Amino acid sequence: MSDIATNLDGRPLATTGPVLIIGSGLLGASAALALRAAGIDVFLDDISPTSLALARDLGAGEIYRETMAEPRLVIVAVPPDVTSTCVIRALRDFPSAIVTDVASVKSLVISEVLASGVDVSRYVSSHPMAGRERSGAAAADRDLFIGRPWVVIAHEQSSDLARLRVRELAVDMGASVVELDAQGHDTAVALVSHVPQLVASLVAARLADAPDEALALAGQGLRDTTRIAASDPRLWTSIVSGNCGPVVEVLRQFHGDLADLIAGLESGAQHGFGADGSVGAINSVIEAGNEGVARIPGKHGGAPRRWAIVEVLVPDKPGELARLFSELGAIGINIEDLTLDHSAHQRVGSARLMVDPTRAREAEQELETRGWRIVSH
Amino acid sequence: MSDIATNLDGRPLATTGPVLIIGSGLLGASAALALRAAGIDVFLDDISPTSLALARDLGAGEIYRETMAEPRLVIVAVPPDVTSTCVIRALRDFPSAIVTDVASVKSLVISEVLASGVDVSRYVSSHPMAGRERSGAAAADRDLFIGRPWVVIAHEQSSDLARLRVRELAVDMGASVVELDAQGHDTAVALVSHVPQLVASLVAARLADAPDEALALAGQGLRDTTRIAASDPRLWTSIVSGNCGPVVEVLRQFHGDLADLIAGLESGAQHGFGADGSVGAINSVIEAGNEGVARIPGKHGGAPRRWAIVEVLVPDKPGELARLFSELGAIGINIEDLTLDHSAHQRVGSARLMVDPTRAREAEQELETRGWRIVSH
Repeated sequence: MSDIATNLDGRPLATTGPVLIIGSGLLGASAALALRAAGIDVFLDDISPTSLALARDLGAGEIYRETMAEPRLVIVAVPPDVTSTCVIRALRDFPSAIVTDVASVKSLVISEVLASGVDVSRYVSSHPMAGRERSGAAAADRDLFIGRPWVVIAHEQSSDLARLRVRELAVDMGASVVELDAQGHDTAVALVSHVPQLVASLVAARLADAPDEALALAGQGLRDTTRIAASDPRLWTSIVSGNCGPVVEVLRQFHGDLADLIAGLESGAQHGFGADGSVGAINSVIEAGNEGVARIPGKHGGAPRRWAIVEVLVPDKPGELARLFSELGAIGINIEDLTLDHSAHQRVGSARLMVDPTRAREAEQELETRGWRIVSH
Repeated sequence: MSDIATNLDGRPLATTGPVLIIGSGLLGASAALALRAAGIDVFLDDISPTSLALARDLGAGEIYRETMAEPRLVIVAVPPDVTSTCVIRALRDFPSAIVTDVASVKSLVISEVLASGVDVSRYVSSHPMAGRERSGAAAADRDLFIGRPWVVIAHEQSSDLARLRVRELAVDMGASVVELDAQGHDTAVALVSHVPQLVASLVAARLADAPDEALALAGQGLRDTTRIAASDPRLWTSIVSGNCGPVVEVLRQFHGDLADLIAGLESGAQHGFGADGSVGAINSVIEAGNEGVARIPGKHGGAPRRWAIVEVLVPDKPGELARLFSELGAIGINIEDLTLDHSAHQRVGSARLMVDPTRAREAEQELETRGWRIVSH
């Protein structure tokens, strides 16, 4: 082990060990693996001896014993409903350590910690936006946090040092630091994560009893809007139940918007094509949606940029998509995003490539020269 | 021109000309281009002389004059609210022709035609599921229908011959025929297309006034669920206003489900972690969503198949994605679907590749050998 710990890119880490990680699930074990890969001493604790042994065997660190040195940093990575208890105990047990947690729910957790009477100056909460469907140490990955936002939530009594250490941890993990207060965090995740999940599930739920013929007409739009409806019920129940207040607030507004739309459409249902009430109601909903979706940041967090779409028909056999991408590489075109669209019963799909608008025409011409069939836009 | 018209794959077409296409917008001009490419005579008509001239100049066919031969098939491709008028006139003007339309709304259109007193035995309605954001002949594409479902809607008085000819047209266009009745069609598209569009717009609309910090936390889930919220308001207003009845019915059920969820969550908002009402409400919504999304057909219309996910970190520079796909091609792995995930402020993304589960492990090993960083699942 070298004197200075470095991360996977060879940058020196700011975080110094030993680090105690309480909870050896997905987030805890992933952070542990990343710290270990940088040569930092990691101690592991977990209420489950089996989980603990698994994390150790995966190389996530040593099992913590009271005779060990006091950790400099404690990361509490347990479910939201037991997070405050673990944070309070860590602040009591390790009087010099900085303590953070990674729970996806903040206001409840932080208020419970602040009410405990322990020294809370050493506590700064946080939330890496790096969930996934699978949980547990077996799903852990030292690269889990790379490129993800990591929200840092200091409270009024947090020391500057504690805040710095938690920010450093996030950066060392390859994440991008976003500072918010607890309420701001909970409102934000309700809006951009919890409500979209619930609404996607509600839309998908309407398909459960639909006739097969209806589902045969499903296109890419339906697939996109319901993809996350396949998420784990246990995970999402724990997340949303810890953030009911902000989630209900957004859902109530959504419910009101929906009621307005239904009222507008009901006039259309009675009067047929072009009834005034329905046309106005539909148009304003779609326009408001245009405005909202335009605010989602593009890659690199810049202002949303309009990519040009190049749509190519791709026969469904091994190597075709590979050949397409290989040839785009040869042309020197970078693909910013893409969607694949397949319809039922067919052996051809289309790939919609988002590319730099100044290169789109060239890309189309070069691909056509190479025998690809371009769908004009 | 050869004696037997063939389509793009060299198969002989069943459709015989001349074909009159009324309405030279996206759908009409696309069908015209595909028929012309197969060597079939196409006549064009449109209320707008400019649109008509544009379609002709694009090679979609000849401008129709009354001195021309009677068409064997008439395709009415005008907006839903004027479709029945055009169908009725075509049935009157061409007493031997088969007539179809391609409007995205069926019950209203067909009932208006049936009430007209003309010979409706030669009329079979249809709906190719091939919309796109842009409209007009300039956006037309002879490949527009390839791989898409094309719904054929016969009514009680339709002749077998008319139904056969419209089915043949859909197959000649490369589409996949789905037969439904008008009510079944309108209910199906409300469920799998119109309501998902409206709900995506409503979710996105909630982002319009959100703080930038909240939007910075947006992940792939939000992007997926709101992608179609960028759709054209004028187009969607015309579609939904012609199908208000079925759309309202689905939205009312959705509204009821949403109200139940909110009521459950409200108990959680008052009681904190694990309040019984909220946990049950959230869990049942997510589970119902699981059940619904599992019913969306996979590629080729088969039972939904579970693909294995191989997730690879991809540096964001030109050629990297190309290199990844090229190397997957060399390994012989077919990519069934994929999503790209980029977070704000970062120069690395992850590609989630859906591959044959029996090849996933091999794909991961081969990619790691070639220097790619795999995110374990």
